[in-house]
Amino acid sequence: MLNSHALEMPSSYLFSEIGKRVSAFQEKHEADGPRIIRMGIGDVTRPLPGACVEAMRKAADEQADAATFQGYPPGEGYDFLRGAIAEHEYKRRGVNIPADDIFVSDGAKSDSANIQELFDNDCVVGVTDPVYPVYVDSNAWSGRLGSYSGGQWERLVTFPCTRENGYVASPPDGHVDLLYLCFPNNPTGTAATAKQLREWVDYANKHGAVIVYDAAYRAYIANPDIPRTIYEIDGAKDCAIEICSFSKSAGFTGVRCSWTVVPRELRRGGASLRALWTRRQATKFNGVPYIVQRAAEAVYSPDGRRQCAETIAYYMRNALKVRQALTDAGIEATGGENAPYVWMRCPNGMDSWSFFDYLLKEARVVGTPGSGFGACGAGYFRLTAFGSSEDTDEAMKRIALL
Amino acid sequence: MLNSHALEMPSSYLFSEIGKRVSAFQEKHEADGPRIIRMGIGDVTRPLPGACVEAMRKAADEQADAATFQGYPPGEGYDFLRGAIAEHEYKRRGVNIPADDIFVSDGAKSDSANIQELFDNDCVVGVTDPVYPVYVDSNAWSGRLGSYSGGQWERLVTFPCTRENGYVASPPDGHVDLLYLCFPNNPTGTAATAKQLREWVDYANKHGAVIVYDAAYRAYIANPDIPRTIYEIDGAKDCAIEICSFSKSAGFTGVRCSWTVVPRELRRGGASLRALWTRRQATKFNGVPYIVQRAAEAVYSPDGRRQCAETIAYYMRNALKVRQALTDAGIEATGGENAPYVWMRCPNGMDSWSFFDYLLKEARVVGTPGSGFGACGAGYFRLTAFGSSEDTDEAMKRIALL
Repeated sequence: MLNSHALEMPSSYLFSEIGKRVSAFQEKHEADGPRIIRMGIGDVTRPLPGACVEAMRKAADEQADAATFQGYPPGEGYDFLRGAIAEHEYKRRGVNIPADDIFVSDGAKSDSANIQELFDNDCVVGVTDPVYPVYVDSNAWSGRLGSYSGGQWERLVTFPCTRENGYVASPPDGHVDLLYLCFPNNPTGTAATAKQLREWVDYANKHGAVIVYDAAYRAYIANPDIPRTIYEIDGAKDCAIEICSFSKSAGFTGVRCSWTVVPRELRRGGASLRALWTRRQATKFNGVPYIVQRAAEAVYSPDGRRQCAETIAYYMRNALKVRQALTDAGIEATGGENAPYVWMRCPNGMDSWSFFDYLLKEARVVGTPGSGFGACGAGYFRLTAFGSSEDTDEAMKRIALL
Repeated sequence: MLNSHALEMPSSYLFSEIGKRVSAFQEKHEADGPRIIRMGIGDVTRPLPGACVEAMRKAADEQADAATFQGYPPGEGYDFLRGAIAEHEYKRRGVNIPADDIFVSDGAKSDSANIQELFDNDCVVGVTDPVYPVYVDSNAWSGRLGSYSGGQWERLVTFPCTRENGYVASPPDGHVDLLYLCFPNNPTGTAATAKQLREWVDYANKHGAVIVYDAAYRAYIANPDIPRTIYEIDGAKDCAIEICSFSKSAGFTGVRCSWTVVPRELRRGGASLRALWTRRQATKFNGVPYIVQRAAEAVYSPDGRRQCAETIAYYMRNALKVRQALTDAGIEATGGENAPYVWMRCPNGMDSWSFFDYLLKEARVVGTPGSGFGACGAGYFRLTAFGSSEDTDEAMKRIALL
């Protein structure tokens, strides 16, 4: 009677296992040494931009008056926000995305989990390895990946991202229908070049595949030659859905707002994916709070843009410090230049969980074991730049002493 | 390649068809008569309770300071809100629901659409007729209802709610696995008695079925003998999931907050539905904004409770006026006593859409054709109480003159 695919899914133990090990360590050693510094989870720590707070206060006041009260939001988002996104995220970068191809939502996680509902269950799904687990789990839940055994899904194609290919896979030789890419990448922190993205767009258009492009970390791209949106690549509107987020660009992890572009050009078997997504959202979603959409709009005000840029610069100073400290310590590391994540090779051939325990015990620093993101993450470790500047300095000082 | 079940779904034209007819009428007759009064859509119009606005302003300020900043919310909701719901919505009514069986979400629509993901695709689904379309469409999208032809889904069981059974169906003779009930009902405005609900709970426990109980309108129940939650019925924790909402109880249609109870007692085939829903939400959802959850918590403050009660009383005065005016005009009508909807029989044997056109033309009042909610809605019409008191009076005056 219950969903057998869901019941068959292996427990996602990554963050709960981290929590357990940290708690156990704390219980034993809380009192006898320096405090634990957390560089594991991808949550932000800096306060919301003042412009967004101001917009929320104003929107709250509007809700207090019948004349300005806002009820059900439009399912696809208010025009004021869709227009601001079209202008600032696309048009100002030379990319034309009509505002009504932009769908406002409550989070990149929701959209990247829900997007598979547009596809038939016999589609072949491909993901990079290592990977953000939501792409895999949402497809497994629907039964699109077959059975799970020996640590693998029967019908899942993976594209290994390794030090040999610079952590950016090339398209496969075989056929895939639905593929997920995330750049700048979580967890490796690598950004894809225009040439690399072009290979994927060409592959998708040749195979009739659809790319789900997760660009949640695009605001961290520093190199002007790296595409900030997949639509900078010719032909991408014919094959790609792009998912973006205010979580990391404006500190909205607790505010919940994101957007997804489903271009009107994107059709398969004569049907429009944009029409199907519109229908999906109208059936299962009732829109994003008015107050949240006003906060998101304020991200694009002059003050909001300046404040967001300052916060991103703050985190990126952390990222560069982490990358530099690891390199200075003779540890191989990538990322941290165009992304808030640094992906390091565990020293002395340690596996990911051994290094986790070692780092917790010896430096009292918590990171994320790379093996939690897929087979190719084995022997790797992720550190994030979202902590305070002081914590980051202190953690790197401790690591240098190891 | 695309979801063939979704592509096969008939267009949901109800509210867009209403919009089209109203626009066409306006274009022709805008200038030559009184303004149009809308009593069709279920959105509220009164401002948010002051206590909720105050809580939102305070929460916005907290987001502006690193010391009080809130990032990712807990996926199931903050303890402060789950605890307040457990206390005020259940314990004070003599029902014990542990706070951690309560899952906070962004809307009753999302949850009632997503809950079917817990079930296998061969489950037999049953709904009342007339029905809130989301229950049907979400199951159709997943392919659980088979093919659509002749206006019917191959594998959907319907329970007719007619004047003969007082718009509350009894359980069927045959077997159903997953069934949806909504009381007070949208669209008919009927509330189910304890005796009626007990029949359904007994049926579900006998058949191993699961009831999804949509109680979004429970705050409108005036009769103290009518259950406000299905858990007032013995045995309901073994078979029922309850979905509730702040949308209509506190005017949160534009704020977006709801909750769903999945009792720990509810198991099928040895598996816990609560564990499966926890997993579903952890995989596909990232929680409700901090500021929204603080606003919802304020619903239960002394001021919030008083303000919500005032607004509900305001709408219920409208509802009673509508019901009375129709009765005085010799029109058969139900609902409006324990629900914000009045369900009327179209006079003179008119069909739902003919009456829609007639009412629009002759009274300039917009309602919702009952046939849009299912075959049993044919010849019926829904009016809502969510307008202003002045508009409701004016609309009823016009109807009386027809």
